Amino acid sequence: MLSKTKIKFINSLYRKKNREQTNLFIAEGEKTIQQLIEAKYDFQTIISTEDEIDQFSNLTCERIKASKDEIKKISSFKTPQPVIAVCKQQIHLQPQPHSLKNELTLALDDIQDPGNLGTIIRLASWFGIKNIICSLKTADCYNPKTIQATMGAIAHVNVYYTNLEEYLLLAEQQTNLPVYGTFLNGKNIYASELSPNGIIIMGNEGNGISSGIERKVNHKLYIPSFNEMKVESLNVSVATSIICSEFRRRTIQV
Amino acid sequence: MLSKTKIKFINSLYRKKNREQTNLFIAEGEKTIQQLIEAKYDFQTIISTEDEIDQFSNLTCERIKASKDEIKKISSFKTPQPVIAVCKQQIHLQPQPHSLKNELTLALDDIQDPGNLGTIIRLASWFGIKNIICSLKTADCYNPKTIQATMGAIAHVNVYYTNLEEYLLLAEQQTNLPVYGTFLNGKNIYASELSPNGIIIMGNEGNGISSGIERKVNHKLYIPSFNEMKVESLNVSVATSIICSEFRRRTIQV
Repeated sequence: MLSKTKIKFINSLYRKKNREQTNLFIAEGEKTIQQLIEAKYDFQTIISTEDEIDQFSNLTCERIKASKDEIKKISSFKTPQPVIAVCKQQIHLQPQPHSLKNELTLALDDIQDPGNLGTIIRLASWFGIKNIICSLKTADCYNPKTIQATMGAIAHVNVYYTNLEEYLLLAEQQTNLPVYGTFLNGKNIYASELSPNGIIIMGNEGNGISSGIERKVNHKLYIPSFNEMKVESLNVSVATSIICSEFRRRTIQV
Repeated sequence: MLSKTKIKFINSLYRKKNREQTNLFIAEGEKTIQQLIEAKYDFQTIISTEDEIDQFSNLTCERIKASKDEIKKISSFKTPQPVIAVCKQQIHLQPQPHSLKNELTLALDDIQDPGNLGTIIRLASWFGIKNIICSLKTADCYNPKTIQATMGAIAHVNVYYTNLEEYLLLAEQQTNLPVYGTFLNGKNIYASELSPNGIIIMGNEGNGISSGIERKVNHKLYIPSFNEMKVESLNVSVATSIICSEFRRRTIQV
């Protein structure tokens, strides 16, 4: 049974402040939780219905059987999944820019929507991108909506928060990594030379890449539209996927 | 002022059944509404705060000034935008398959999530795809969450609902359009020949392309992962964007 105190505690983790104070986060659903287990995340509590509790029997953490109605009280879903976990955040030491010189890395400049961030983490995992460097105002990767959108990929991608401008300055000083970003006056990405390694910056949903960060970009790109009419723009996670696909495509022999 | 009856009526449009009966839908926010105006959608009612009402003065429809609190009662946003419209659905005659033979067309096989559908409509518009043919179980393109995710692109893309299997049978009989779909046993998309015209099928979020539809696919593709570990999958709107980008890239001279 879920006590009132426990319900209150778990619900407190929907707020970033409380996640930061406790270094905990909420993961919902068997698939996501299984991937976190494989990636050796530590768990504080597993809450599940009677039917599901046995499959987590070798986890050394608090295990609570709960009814569907009880799980509803702590879930962010209208139709909750039968398992919810309170999980410990993994703290990774932020990689120095020079250690990224043989990799493709994403940098996010104030991505606000937790769902977009989660989708970006999921596709980064698909494209074998190990690290995402986020500006301090980027959404929290432990937001339950983000975790949900990653579909477990949060277990395979390291996400860091830092002063992005300073980080890129350091990258400039330590390495000669190309820094890419998309701009209206950029070069057609399909016709541009793309390095297998580098940093790709994705900007805020409404405002794009901020001017301080823009100064660190040494390769401006553009995804051309194939619509003759003036069309708004691409969703940032969609744009990220197109860019990552194009970078990775170039690395394979066809 | 918004009457109680009006509030009740507008909120009824959050249900598909009521949208179908009235052929109306809800559009929120100035950008989306402006694009619908440009695309010659008809409006039944515009509700906005005092500050915003004048910019819609040349629309021949009911116009209601409302307070922010009143708008909150009919909005799907926590922080509502100052304009909401009740808009008439545009009815387009479903294109016969042979009329699509010089185009790239998307077909959706039971895409369930309204947000995914909206994102797909938005990116289809970007890539100059004029028509999307949906199975009958695909989410409703007039769902407020879909409209919101299209960011106005619903005004530029025609979305049809039909028995997709029968439609593809007709396409087979009328045309020799290639039909593409992604499958685990498909060919690497980056290394496959892609026609500038054809039908690209995207499958359901959980189950992929159904077996009846699979039989109509004559070119099986696959987006390769660049992650050595086993990773889940790509979000369907992300996969759609990668595929559309790759098809369109081939059509330009670089």
